[in-house]
Amino acid sequence: VRLSELSEHSGLPIATIKYYLREGLLPAGARVNARQAEYGDEHLRRLRLIRAMQQVGGMSVSQVRNVLTCAEDGSFSRHERLGITQYLLPPHVEPPAGDQHWVEVRAEVDALMVELDWQVNSWSPSLDALTRAVVALRHLGYRSGPEDLKRYAMAVRPLAEAEYLVIDEEYPDLDEAMEATVAYTLLYEPILLAVRRLAHEDVSARLHRRRPLSPLRPDPPPAPDPAEH
Amino acid sequence: VRLSELSEHSGLPIATIKYYLREGLLPAGARVNARQAEYGDEHLRRLRLIRAMQQVGGMSVSQVRNVLTCAEDGSFSRHERLGITQYLLPPHVEPPAGDQHWVEVRAEVDALMVELDWQVNSWSPSLDALTRAVVALRHLGYRSGPEDLKRYAMAVRPLAEAEYLVIDEEYPDLDEAMEATVAYTLLYEPILLAVRRLAHEDVSARLHRRRPLSPLRPDPPPAPDPAEH
Repeated sequence: VRLSELSEHSGLPIATIKYYLREGLLPAGARVNARQAEYGDEHLRRLRLIRAMQQVGGMSVSQVRNVLTCAEDGSFSRHERLGITQYLLPPHVEPPAGDQHWVEVRAEVDALMVELDWQVNSWSPSLDALTRAVVALRHLGYRSGPEDLKRYAMAVRPLAEAEYLVIDEEYPDLDEAMEATVAYTLLYEPILLAVRRLAHEDVSARLHRRRPLSPLRPDPPPAPDPAEH
Repeated sequence: VRLSELSEHSGLPIATIKYYLREGLLPAGARVNARQAEYGDEHLRRLRLIRAMQQVGGMSVSQVRNVLTCAEDGSFSRHERLGITQYLLPPHVEPPAGDQHWVEVRAEVDALMVELDWQVNSWSPSLDALTRAVVALRHLGYRSGPEDLKRYAMAVRPLAEAEYLVIDEEYPDLDEAMEATVAYTLLYEPILLAVRRLAHEDVSARLHRRRPLSPLRPDPPPAPDPAEH
């Protein structure tokens, strides 16, 4: 298709697509003549991936370029490319220099990975994100020992495995798999957090035997009182 | 203790404590004489709660005041007070007006709560947060049906129940329970998200039979080759 149609199909302005072409985020189309080029499905998929990384992932153009460069580098495997995509997604936590408490918690986090036998890189950003949250909890005086973290890891693992298998099976195309990695990683996060808060509310309601003030399902009408007959 | 000691114990500047007193976030101390007042443990606990809501929860002074007003209103039960605390924590999602797609997804979310028999208020902000994430996923063309959401809800529920029981049993004091609600709700969120990403990495490594590029545990030395002897 021509540039104008690519713009129509992707919902992106022509100026934006030209910017991506200039910045090297989108490969050039096949030249038809001196002034026109032809674009294919791979261009449409690439535009969707760029949009997902920018709008859902909040990634900058240079971060997007980093991911795409890896995607095109034949020396990286699919596992490595999807891993790099995940690593570049926010948040990125900077470990504070010379904080002994941080070093201790990070060692506990590393030991937990070894105990679980999880095969992760020592430079995975999630290890620092995990460390920061545990440091903050303990700073406020809350316990958050390795056993607590292990419970979280075990509870989340089946979900993560199912998510990964969907991406692996349904998106053999690498651009689509990278886009799915961005979308699944980031958009299932608020889902996980929202159902947790709803579960808290339900547990509290049951413990205190309280009905919701404004229930989602109205109470059934009371059973007829046999004494009235 | 005197104001200067309260400042020392809480780690907060005297000017900040005076500001909280003026704004009504902190109850006045017992007057010792015209110029001095005496503060107790309840003041220290309240300062910790205010700090947790502001620093961890990112709440404004007026949001903090709303929570504390409820905490002191005898007409609310403990369940309601902790619920109000949770509801005031970010994020707050504004449902778009007149979006038919949103209305449909929100109806699915409500139906899921009824199917799970979770007792939650129809105005719980997490129902809108959940709706927004599902709308965004579907907008990008990903499936995210009620069965998917149900799996997340079921996986997270045992964790949420354990968290709530800790707060209920260990913090009979309401200010402490509210502080724990803020800390547990918000600080276990990055933990949940980090272990999920680490699980993705491990699943990917196993599926593709790849060892981490930089493992947390060095490989054991190779077994001696019997042929060498």
